[in-house]
Amino acid sequence: MRTLGARLSRTAPGEVEIELPYREALTQQHGFLHAGIVTAVMDSACGYAAFSLMPPGAGVLSVEFKVNLLAPAKGEVLIARGRVLRAGRTISVCQADGIMRSGDSETPVATMLATIMTVMGRPDVVR
Amino acid sequence: MRTLGARLSRTAPGEVEIELPYREALTQQHGFLHAGIVTAVMDSACGYAAFSLMPPGAGVLSVEFKVNLLAPAKGEVLIARGRVLRAGRTISVCQADGIMRSGDSETPVATMLATIMTVMGRPDVVR
Amino acid sequence: MRTLGARLSRTAPGEVEIELPYREALTQQHGFLHAGIVTAVMDSACGYAAFSLMPPGAGVLSVEFKVNLLAPAKGEVLIARGRVLRAGRTISVCQADGIMRSGDSETPVATMLATIMTVMGRPDVVR
Amino acid sequence: MRTLGARLSRTAPGEVEIELPYREALTQQHGFLHAGIVTAVMDSACGYAAFSLMPPGAGVLSVEFKVNLLAPAKGEVLIARGRVLRAGRTISVCQADGIMRSGDSETPVATMLATIMTVMGRPDVVR
Repeated sequence: MRTLGARLSRTAPGEVEIELPYREALTQQHGFLHAGIVTAVMDSACGYAAFSLMPPGAGVLSVEFKVNLLAPAKGEVLIARGRVLRAGRTISVCQADGIMRSGDSETPVATMLATIMTVMGRPDVVR
Repeated sequence: MRTLGARLSRTAPGEVEIELPYREALTQQHGFLHAGIVTAVMDSACGYAAFSLMPPGAGVLSVEFKVNLLAPAKGEVLIARGRVLRAGRTISVCQADGIMRSGDSETPVATMLATIMTVMGRPDVVR
Repeated sequence: MRTLGARLSRTAPGEVEIELPYREALTQQHGFLHAGIVTAVMDSACGYAAFSLMPPGAGVLSVEFKVNLLAPAKGEVLIARGRVLRAGRTISVCQADGIMRSGDSETPVATMLATIMTVMGRPDVVR
Repeated sequence: MRTLGARLSRTAPGEVEIELPYREALTQQHGFLHAGIVTAVMDSACGYAAFSLMPPGAGVLSVEFKVNLLAPAKGEVLIARGRVLRAGRTISVCQADGIMRSGDSETPVATMLATIMTVMGRPDVVR
């Protein structure tokens, strides 16, 4: 996320918001943010939302995600809002909205439904 | 795909293979290819596989995809093999395997099931 | 839905609610409503939600759906709340929550993210 | 599955086949097998395929599944072929094809990509 220029703009238990300013280096051939970038940021929002409810020392792994692309990702800032639908001991189910903001207007561009796993005792996956 | 350094390594009607050499700039914090990159390359493999069966002048749009992450994406080259499961007039269903190759060994790292839409008369989405 | 004993309990543009009373004939080996039944009712909720925003004469086809199972489906009534996230000319994206109600308490048991297609001129798929 | 009239027609480590003869009681309004039924049988095929690779005493839980519907489910017998793509200690990833057979011809009607969890020490979920 740091490499992309993303930052955590809001956190609450079970909810996070990540912002990524538009940059030309992250676009596909028509000047929109690439779906892979939008997916990566929404996946991070899901992972951090799940992580916010986990015990100390836990790490998170994305098991799977499904993304529906709703509109081209054009605008000034990509906002990914992730929240936990169900927090389990091993498995958490999270949802994220991907939104492009330009000035005061927000346009939904993608939505994600994801499965996140809690892993203990694996320092390599602690964020 | 060009920006990432990916290339189409094989095409046949309804099937394509895309290769992306490992580069540090495309990794996450542990040195593996980022899931967003793996997803983007598999999405492209699905899109091109569907495109290979479409009439002239058609363009493709990804409607949605679902990805299961199977293993960390470490190795020398990411290979995404996409194929069409059902080619419809409007909707095609495609599957892609994401594989990391190192020397002679191949490790499955992700699998995708995707829905691709044929769009006519929209030069902006012709690849 | 009629065969199952389900009924449309609420409709608004882009939103519907379907209720299915618990019956033993619809359960799996542990006495919970079977995941296939829960899925079928949520799929119907998505289809009707999309249908509520379509022009006259349109029919709906489910292209795909993804379901996360959140908890065993035990309780008195299954409620499936479907709503449209994006209504397109050809493709609509819908979300549904599956909830078990017992007395005053509601427990989320499943969530669905689905892709629904509008089909015109096909009387066989008009609901 | 017993209630539906389904039977396990083939098993091998990591692979199973379930057959369900067509019955009118299992159809939707146009006489095709209902998508919920097709989904339930494919989900069972995924669960049993994962179960076939698990240690003694293990039980299986479906975490989530995604289904693409490919064609109307008409024919004499529904065949669900499930196989394990990745068998993990906690999480297995499985794929299933749903096929309608009539005489000698087979038509793919659906495909599933599913996440199955191994649960130990819970006799209530042992199949």
